Amino acid sequence: MNVAVIGLGLIGGSLLRALAAHGHHVTGYDIGAATRRAAAALARAAEAPPVADPETRPVGIKGGWRVADSIPAAVEGAEVVVLAVPLPALPQVVAELAGFDGLVTDVTSVKGPVRTLLGDLRYVGGHPMAGTAESGFLAADPHLFDGCAWVLCLEDETELADWVRLAGLFTPLGARIVPATAEDHDEAVARISHIPHLLAAALTNLIDGHPLAGALAAGSFRDGTRVAATRAELIAAMCGGNEAAVRRVLPGVIEDLTGYARRLAEPDPVGALTPLLHRAGELRRGWPAAQGVPVSLALDRSSLLELGRAGGWVTGIAAEATGMRPETDRKGS
Amino acid sequence: MNVAVIGLGLIGGSLLRALAAHGHHVTGYDIGAATRRAAAALARAAEAPPVADPETRPVGIKGGWRVADSIPAAVEGAEVVVLAVPLPALPQVVAELAGFDGLVTDVTSVKGPVRTLLGDLRYVGGHPMAGTAESGFLAADPHLFDGCAWVLCLEDETELADWVRLAGLFTPLGARIVPATAEDHDEAVARISHIPHLLAAALTNLIDGHPLAGALAAGSFRDGTRVAATRAELIAAMCGGNEAAVRRVLPGVIEDLTGYARRLAEPDPVGALTPLLHRAGELRRGWPAAQGVPVSLALDRSSLLELGRAGGWVTGIAAEATGMRPETDRKGS
Repeated sequence: MNVAVIGLGLIGGSLLRALAAHGHHVTGYDIGAATRRAAAALARAAEAPPVADPETRPVGIKGGWRVADSIPAAVEGAEVVVLAVPLPALPQVVAELAGFDGLVTDVTSVKGPVRTLLGDLRYVGGHPMAGTAESGFLAADPHLFDGCAWVLCLEDETELADWVRLAGLFTPLGARIVPATAEDHDEAVARISHIPHLLAAALTNLIDGHPLAGALAAGSFRDGTRVAATRAELIAAMCGGNEAAVRRVLPGVIEDLTGYARRLAEPDPVGALTPLLHRAGELRRGWPAAQGVPVSLALDRSSLLELGRAGGWVTGIAAEATGMRPETDRKGS
Repeated sequence: MNVAVIGLGLIGGSLLRALAAHGHHVTGYDIGAATRRAAAALARAAEAPPVADPETRPVGIKGGWRVADSIPAAVEGAEVVVLAVPLPALPQVVAELAGFDGLVTDVTSVKGPVRTLLGDLRYVGGHPMAGTAESGFLAADPHLFDGCAWVLCLEDETELADWVRLAGLFTPLGARIVPATAEDHDEAVARISHIPHLLAAALTNLIDGHPLAGALAAGSFRDGTRVAATRAELIAAMCGGNEAAVRRVLPGVIEDLTGYARRLAEPDPVGALTPLLHRAGELRRGWPAAQGVPVSLALDRSSLLELGRAGGWVTGIAAEATGMRPETDRKGS
């Protein structure tokens, strides 16, 4: 397939290399000239004739990839365009896609606002849940998506054939394609990514002005606060870009904490608190679900969304989709 | 020194072995007959004549340790008794110490209530912040205390000579002795251990009934919820045993989270939230303090407590105490 990848950071660069390694004709573009040069240099190395030690040959297509000098040049002739730029850069990039009539997807971590922004294009929202500890093209890894959950949005207006085409493009990279609506996606990431960052910040504040506490802090503090080291601007951008969902979910956390405090004020605080903690222990010991149960399912919107809501994912596209349901849901399969 | 260790789980067993390795005459006791047998068997192995391969000889005294069959037998002739039993077992053990007039310390994670319980003994409260992932005598490790923060409580009623004696006993094991009042200790562990467990539970609850969120959850959720897998009874016992401090500190966390939600409701949620997150990022990137600054200080209560409150610790007892101040406090040293 002819694919254009716009933005060659960690995600875009990894995707460029992974798709090329799987035999697709890929063209990359990045706004940074240094990044374009690095991507072009690596493509030449990939194109070079086989050397004695195949280990020194980068993973890539029989033939590497092309690097374009502009967005219009990159997307010319592409069947699929992947926008792998940060959320604030999207409006500008979308403006440069004027006239493109192929399929567009993206990789940003919030899907509702992007759906609104890209409404005039043939668009399927995407979000690979891939690591962010490193960044930039030099950190790109063609194996980044192996085992990674990759949400592809299925809305009322989505052409099922477009969704299936992208699922068929990404599953061979090892991605677990999770079908979800933008709304369900945004609430899920508020729960498991955005709010964890806010809790980590609030927990970190507990050592402010308390160096004794800081000196005694060990494992539970270390892990509970790890992501608070993320730049404030990035956390605020994530949470602010998804403010509706974060504001919907956060009060439940506050309510739980208030309930714990109330139980601790009872005459038998230990006995009063214990039952409130059982469910969380059970859930955490059962997470992540150890093993999915293979299923095949009809390629229709409601079957796919039902799979995603149950915590399952698609592993391949055949005559009908094949996927995994989480083991805990076995009774229903 | 003649030392008795009551309770031979991870902490007590490790202490038995570490003190013996440092040449002290140590007697251990555990309520479990199987644990007593294991400790006695290891002592015999330690006592055996040197073998060709010294690696096969357990770390221990030139002569191992003694295992007693009762608490009175264990403490007979001891100058120091270390109570290394869980909090709920303390009252029974204390009853069996009737008539003992030596120095008593303990290792439980809350110090105010134990201070009340042991008020009639010559008592210095202790709390080594050593790992709890494994438990039992078979997990005991004579090197467990190397680099470990070990709070020793300094109250108005504490004999400074008793405090100094214990500090001199534990610093050679590699422990960083942190002087603190029971009240300051209990508030510090509420901040860095007990409340982190409650936040982890509340965060884990966010995937309850949301399998899609559970399927998408990755690093930030994993780390932020890790300690929620602890048994509910243990978390409740920790928090309930320290309920006053937990209830004093928890409202500040709730207030921070409420503040984040309020900022996210403003017209520019990203700009409004960012400044609220700067301090936490700064604190977390600066934690733990990389390096202490060696200081020597007078052996008096207020100098020691000041060191502890600043996040410092004692590394040895000489004519005057020697310790480390955290680097961030360098301006004051």
